Amino acid sequence: MQAIEGYRPYFQEKETFMNSKLKDIISTMEQQRWDTVLLTDPKHIYYLTGYASDPHERFLGLVLQQSCEPFLLLPALDADVAAAASGGICILTHRDTDQPYDILKSRLEAPVGVLALEKSHMTLSRFEQLQETLSAHHYADIGPLLQDMRAVKSPHEISIMKEAVRIVEQVLTEGLRSVRPGVRELELVAELEYLMKKSGAQAPSFDTMVLTGSHTALPHGVPGMREIQEGDLLMFDLGVYYGGYASDITRTFAVGHLSAEARHIYDTVLAANLSAIAAVKPGVSYGSIDQAARSLIEQAGYGEAFLHRLGHGLGLDVHEAPFIHGLNNELLQPGAVFTIEPGIYIPGIGGVRIEDDVWVTEQGVEILTTFPKELTVLG
Amino acid sequence: MQAIEGYRPYFQEKETFMNSKLKDIISTMEQQRWDTVLLTDPKHIYYLTGYASDPHERFLGLVLQQSCEPFLLLPALDADVAAAASGGICILTHRDTDQPYDILKSRLEAPVGVLALEKSHMTLSRFEQLQETLSAHHYADIGPLLQDMRAVKSPHEISIMKEAVRIVEQVLTEGLRSVRPGVRELELVAELEYLMKKSGAQAPSFDTMVLTGSHTALPHGVPGMREIQEGDLLMFDLGVYYGGYASDITRTFAVGHLSAEARHIYDTVLAANLSAIAAVKPGVSYGSIDQAARSLIEQAGYGEAFLHRLGHGLGLDVHEAPFIHGLNNELLQPGAVFTIEPGIYIPGIGGVRIEDDVWVTEQGVEILTTFPKELTVLG
Repeated sequence: MQAIEGYRPYFQEKETFMNSKLKDIISTMEQQRWDTVLLTDPKHIYYLTGYASDPHERFLGLVLQQSCEPFLLLPALDADVAAAASGGICILTHRDTDQPYDILKSRLEAPVGVLALEKSHMTLSRFEQLQETLSAHHYADIGPLLQDMRAVKSPHEISIMKEAVRIVEQVLTEGLRSVRPGVRELELVAELEYLMKKSGAQAPSFDTMVLTGSHTALPHGVPGMREIQEGDLLMFDLGVYYGGYASDITRTFAVGHLSAEARHIYDTVLAANLSAIAAVKPGVSYGSIDQAARSLIEQAGYGEAFLHRLGHGLGLDVHEAPFIHGLNNELLQPGAVFTIEPGIYIPGIGGVRIEDDVWVTEQGVEILTTFPKELTVLG
Repeated sequence: MQAIEGYRPYFQEKETFMNSKLKDIISTMEQQRWDTVLLTDPKHIYYLTGYASDPHERFLGLVLQQSCEPFLLLPALDADVAAAASGGICILTHRDTDQPYDILKSRLEAPVGVLALEKSHMTLSRFEQLQETLSAHHYADIGPLLQDMRAVKSPHEISIMKEAVRIVEQVLTEGLRSVRPGVRELELVAELEYLMKKSGAQAPSFDTMVLTGSHTALPHGVPGMREIQEGDLLMFDLGVYYGGYASDITRTFAVGHLSAEARHIYDTVLAANLSAIAAVKPGVSYGSIDQAARSLIEQAGYGEAFLHRLGHGLGLDVHEAPFIHGLNNELLQPGAVFTIEPGIYIPGIGGVRIEDDVWVTEQGVEILTTFPKELTVLG
């Protein structure tokens, strides 16, 4: 069924995967005395059922109660795709003229009691409607549980993420062939996103960033019509979604000869990247990984120019927990996947960022990204 | 400044535009006795300041109080881009290690009092943090005000939307050259999204949909590896963001000779599309527009196969108010822009949807989309 195309890798072991995840949630429901769980984040519904969709403003929910079978409530026009993708979960539908919360209430088989929902996904207005219709005793946040579950990737999830990385690295390799003085940032963005689709990616995992020369000094610059010039720093930050999972890589290149300071910045960022990766192993704190990179950049006198955290978790979202900054005292655990992306940005000179995706293993670390990091001169 | 590239058209009259919008909000603050307004939806911040960004999970807010100057609070790494884009609004920044709500509280010059925020954008978890830090007397919803403001497009906004339509129609025209038996759905998607970037679009306004043959029977089908075959219905649903505004168009084509029923479905959907457009004028209800199309499809015996609303508002979001369905008794007003997209979906035979973007004028209606609707045979 073509609706599953993008997700086939997931489906190879969907049953076992889905069941173990749902079991975790149901056992937590017992421990926490949650009577009802309502999940509305499409990524969580995909994570637990295999059904991927973007319902836009329409209502999509996965409902769990101790006493009865889980069900999906979703727009009627998505019913066929959902049935094919979600492998047997009971599906209820609503039309655009229905009140989804009334249908929801009418189909609950036990009292709502304590309702657990995703407080970081549910909007305040939806919550107020929900309160009115369901009037639960208490509203608990299931977000942290799902965040913890998602933070530990299964070997199967890792295999999907490795493919997401392989695709984006192939795209970057092919895209570099179009680099030459006179080519515009947006032309390279178009080329890269075209290659992503051609390579089997579902979509870019964020707006592809190609920045040249002075523009590289903007950590969140927006690609525009600037043309590549001799002596430019050239920064690529890109990723793809594949099988529902994101990859994310940044590499910075030289177009022709760089100034001595640009070269020094590059060497400093690369050293910070390697020093952070060397510090990754189970049991150390995320803060210490940030510090391993930051202290090195501070020693080089660029501390003020590294004005963002070291990295972020990677998975169903391109930015997800954990967030790697100095105040995060959580400890790394096997199965975590996150980015390491130190950067230095100097207005007038330019910026350098080098980003890898790393996987915390029992033994230490596996670097998912394999693209070379030594300074490469293009054009 | 390249960060503004995608938005230049907006900036041609940014000052007057921005001021009139902010004035509307400030006068409503007086009427409603709102002491403080906090806007966090990046689209609203763009709408009011011209600063476009995707802060991901980082905090971005626009703060208004009667007694003092509006300010933006945003991530330090975006400060330069924001200063260049937002034309003089006071900018405060936070780093990844800061608590943005503490900074927010410390910079308010008057008591929080009644705080108006976007309840349909604010998440429950953010709201709970906000309550803890700011402890306002009362929380009002500013969403409806912004929805009403956005529902009436200025001549300038219309001119941007016409360009967004022009771009997507040019993309569709060029993309059709790649249609021939054997080409896969995803190959056409890649081609179309490549053409979008090349044509100066910021991005697709939603995942480009190309469906072939039996797949067209899925209103929200996902493009896959199916190849175009002789006798297929071929459905394109695509749009772009340009200058911050969305376009959205659907056309359905024939590849070679269609069955008599497929042809009958096409003619029925086209008649419904035309009948709905003919009904558009100020003062009639949105429900009656939906009914104008639906009754015609019901008379043809396909009522059950038209299982979605007739259309949706279009603007800064590709789906925004108003939503055009039978239960919406709101009256059309000049300046409204929305889609008209009746469809019929028959498993085994296929689906047809024909979607236009229309603008309600003082006189009646102007159809923004100009792409021909008579059945076109390709390949």
